Amino acid sequence: MMSDMTTRDHIINSADQLFYRQGFEHTSFSNIADAVQISRGNFYHHFKSKDEILDAVINVRLANTQMMLEKWEIEGKTPEDRIRSFINILIANKAKIKQYGCPVGTLCTELAKLNHASQPEANRLFMLFRIWLCRQFTLLGREADADALAMHLLARSQGVATLANAFHDEKFIKNEVKQMSDWLSSCIKGTE
Amino acid sequence: MMSDMTTRDHIINSADQLFYRQGFEHTSFSNIADAVQISRGNFYHHFKSKDEILDAVINVRLANTQMMLEKWEIEGKTPEDRIRSFINILIANKAKIKQYGCPVGTLCTELAKLNHASQPEANRLFMLFRIWLCRQFTLLGREADADALAMHLLARSQGVATLANAFHDEKFIKNEVKQMSDWLSSCIKGTE
Repeated sequence: MMSDMTTRDHIINSADQLFYRQGFEHTSFSNIADAVQISRGNFYHHFKSKDEILDAVINVRLANTQMMLEKWEIEGKTPEDRIRSFINILIANKAKIKQYGCPVGTLCTELAKLNHASQPEANRLFMLFRIWLCRQFTLLGREADADALAMHLLARSQGVATLANAFHDEKFIKNEVKQMSDWLSSCIKGTE
Repeated sequence: MMSDMTTRDHIINSADQLFYRQGFEHTSFSNIADAVQISRGNFYHHFKSKDEILDAVINVRLANTQMMLEKWEIEGKTPEDRIRSFINILIANKAKIKQYGCPVGTLCTELAKLNHASQPEANRLFMLFRIWLCRQFTLLGREADADALAMHLLARSQGVATLANAFHDEKFIKNEVKQMSDWLSSCIKGTE
């Protein structure tokens, strides 16, 4: 039913934001119910536990990430353009990254510490980026080290997010994005 | 009194490990008391709240970091040697990083999400490394961009820790440490 779907989506969306802004462990079942402003009965009808909500949040994030990567794939004329789309999410999301860090990295780090059963699922978010970047580097003619280049770029963007969050520094993000862009150009030069 | 100091240190040490391994929020006051195996009365005599323990843990980490940096300063004959000591902690601590991430980065990230009053204190851990690295790059003749180089290296080591933790991959750490070392050599070349 339509209205039923909408309430479920509303719960997932509120939980997604709360998990990102204040962490999974720190967010209680009640916090989410309060944010959605529905009765406990209605809430329990959709989700029985916070872990169930987490799985739903991860699934939505996986689907959204997949859609974003497909959009970059279509819009970018060359593999280089597409990799630049990845690098530039640091700029597009700089205000949120400064305040809350990277949504993927901070969730995976938290679930690893909690030794949470959903950690492998959350890791698939990193995997989507890794595999997609690996394919772009392969298309650039770097098949021999495509995965290492993908991991290197993922690591650099993660590190920038962590420090931008700690120091609340957007200028640092811009400076590092410029360097990642130069690094990408040097990767391409090596294949010409 | 000697015995009094020892119990306090024992509490701080247990809390330090629990905060690192399972996160600050997820570690309860009781978890720490259980780990130390002392009575609640004795425990409360030393610390009234988990936040008090956190501050003590951060202070111990700050003191230990300061000592480590001073040791590197004395042992390293050149600024290059000293920066390599920093890069190599990723190798020295690779098993723990693979399992729990970087102790500094994961604590700062968690406290930022909790909007915790001790976040600025925890950030001073990053600051100690930043200032120390900045001084080494200045000594290398890179005074103009010493702080940017320090932040770049800190970010790279943070990113490596985050991904090594997510993918449980020690080989990746070694591969990236080699690249950081090459990057350092290229920084020095630029000054000759």
